[in-house]
Amino acid sequence: MFSFSIKAKDVGSSARLGEFSTPHGSFETPCFMPVATQATVKTLSPEQINLTKSSIILSNAYHLSRRPGEKVIQELGGLHKFMNWPGPILTDSGGFQVFSLAKLNKVTDEGVQFRDPVNGDAISFTPESVIKIQEALGPDIIMPLDQPVPYPTTLEMAKRANERTTNWARRSLAAKSRTDQMLFGIVHGSTYKDLRRQSAESLVELGFKGYAIGGLSVGEGTDLLFDSLGPALEILPGDAPRYLMGVGTPEDIVRAVNMGVDMFDCVLPTRNGRNGWAFTSEGVVRIKNLQYQKDLSSLDAKCGCYTCRNFSKGYLRHLFMSGEILGMTLMSIHNIYYYQALMEGIRNKIIS
Amino acid sequence: MFSFSIKAKDVGSSARLGEFSTPHGSFETPCFMPVATQATVKTLSPEQINLTKSSIILSNAYHLSRRPGEKVIQELGGLHKFMNWPGPILTDSGGFQVFSLAKLNKVTDEGVQFRDPVNGDAISFTPESVIKIQEALGPDIIMPLDQPVPYPTTLEMAKRANERTTNWARRSLAAKSRTDQMLFGIVHGSTYKDLRRQSAESLVELGFKGYAIGGLSVGEGTDLLFDSLGPALEILPGDAPRYLMGVGTPEDIVRAVNMGVDMFDCVLPTRNGRNGWAFTSEGVVRIKNLQYQKDLSSLDAKCGCYTCRNFSKGYLRHLFMSGEILGMTLMSIHNIYYYQALMEGIRNKIIS
Repeated sequence: MFSFSIKAKDVGSSARLGEFSTPHGSFETPCFMPVATQATVKTLSPEQINLTKSSIILSNAYHLSRRPGEKVIQELGGLHKFMNWPGPILTDSGGFQVFSLAKLNKVTDEGVQFRDPVNGDAISFTPESVIKIQEALGPDIIMPLDQPVPYPTTLEMAKRANERTTNWARRSLAAKSRTDQMLFGIVHGSTYKDLRRQSAESLVELGFKGYAIGGLSVGEGTDLLFDSLGPALEILPGDAPRYLMGVGTPEDIVRAVNMGVDMFDCVLPTRNGRNGWAFTSEGVVRIKNLQYQKDLSSLDAKCGCYTCRNFSKGYLRHLFMSGEILGMTLMSIHNIYYYQALMEGIRNKIIS
Repeated sequence: MFSFSIKAKDVGSSARLGEFSTPHGSFETPCFMPVATQATVKTLSPEQINLTKSSIILSNAYHLSRRPGEKVIQELGGLHKFMNWPGPILTDSGGFQVFSLAKLNKVTDEGVQFRDPVNGDAISFTPESVIKIQEALGPDIIMPLDQPVPYPTTLEMAKRANERTTNWARRSLAAKSRTDQMLFGIVHGSTYKDLRRQSAESLVELGFKGYAIGGLSVGEGTDLLFDSLGPALEILPGDAPRYLMGVGTPEDIVRAVNMGVDMFDCVLPTRNGRNGWAFTSEGVVRIKNLQYQKDLSSLDAKCGCYTCRNFSKGYLRHLFMSGEILGMTLMSIHNIYYYQALMEGIRNKIIS
């Protein structure tokens, strides 16, 4: 039902070209997953997601469990049918969100108790309940509950969180019952290289089929990010997919691919797009700038996306200056396409 | 370049089936024009407008002249290219907006002076400048500057506004230089039947190719609306298109068609859609209602629109409860399609 195979390896780096098959279709890696936190890639219809050449999208178990609730989505036919996205979906467990959004959270070895930041509900998440939520939602790839630590953190704190995360990973594997979902392990260890290695070793020992690297891109800066990533990648088995969570800029992605990462997600293309920032081959275009008022050219002369084929910078600027939503839509399509074109270029380069 | 021909007439009413050809394509009447005030049908891409089966859309000369400016749009290739809508476009002059939105407006026989409600700029509109704006924008059908009166208004006030509007209509015809645009006259007269007749007679004497009926649906109520509409329609020539501005509900449209109206525009389907109201064959669906939380059915079992073919009420409710923009898009597509299906039904009924 699942397979991940390496089709080609780069000669000058650790980059690899992979093919990942899931019950809802295959995609090539290295890949970028646009973010659909609330079961919608913000402002885009499924057809518009297709215009971006995205094969797999990412949603969030925590958010969906709160609103509308995983049982509601299950009754409505599961996540794929719910949002009318027939392709592969990965859900993050929401561990990151629980620790970053929720106040008053209390962590024990059993799990985490917290208050819903929207309505104050008392909620309890355990490794088992988080698997259950994702089994109700029905995505193809799921993540276990983890305990991210903020940056910076002490060695002692990072170590304790790691032990807990490893223990939760073991319980998640045991709790999993659906065979049509693949569970990843999540490597932690903050910026401590030894901890990163230990975390990876423990997860490999548990025998996951895929591995995520979490707890990075949380303020540690680019150098420390890649310093922490390296030791984990050294340990992870070469035949399993590796997913660097929440990263990042096009530059970060290229660098991580060269180190052997296969999967990425990031809100940058959509969030920046909604704020009027376009990624282009000539650098960032801030579309509200007056200089684009009468500009008949597309966002990026080298881009073949729907937005660039059909609309001028002058029109896009008008939409943003008028507060018209279509501007956000067109900019999101362009930015995700830019990321997907980057990934395609990376994949082509690995082959040649 | 333009033609309007009556293809069939209803036996039991004054309804007629027409074919309207413009430089950017033909469409059948009675027709409904979705509103694209700022050169975008709010939240929809041109492809999504096509999903609604709309043939002609309506924009607004006043709004576009303020933002981004008619000269900017002209430099960017004209309105059709600007917004990537290759089909017919009608622009309202903005007379209604000048009088309803702007404060401190001063009307003389020459024209109207007012302050831009957004930035306070002093602006002067004359019949000639409004034609010039629309010739720069480049839509297919254009409207002259008129002086709408609020409801209720005295006979004396309505009479004076009518004289001015007729005078402005004459100057508009004289100012017009493009042959690839059709200028309509706008019948006024508030709720005074004699004034409505006189207004129509004066415009017919000036020899317009198409006629709009303005100044209605401004608070006078349904009965007075249709009482005022009748006398105007009696005067207008049968071989010219008749456009009832800003009307209305599905019920109002059916009634006006039966009296011989050919063209309609209204913000109801899009505005209500963005607020979570769907028009359906079973009545209005307020999608945020809890009863739709687990509802796997489409908005309307009898509807074949993109939204109804692909999404459940449960998903639409989730999008609105989560503040996700895709909800507005999907609801707008459905509501406009509902209006267009209504128009198609009306046209089919006239034929048979």
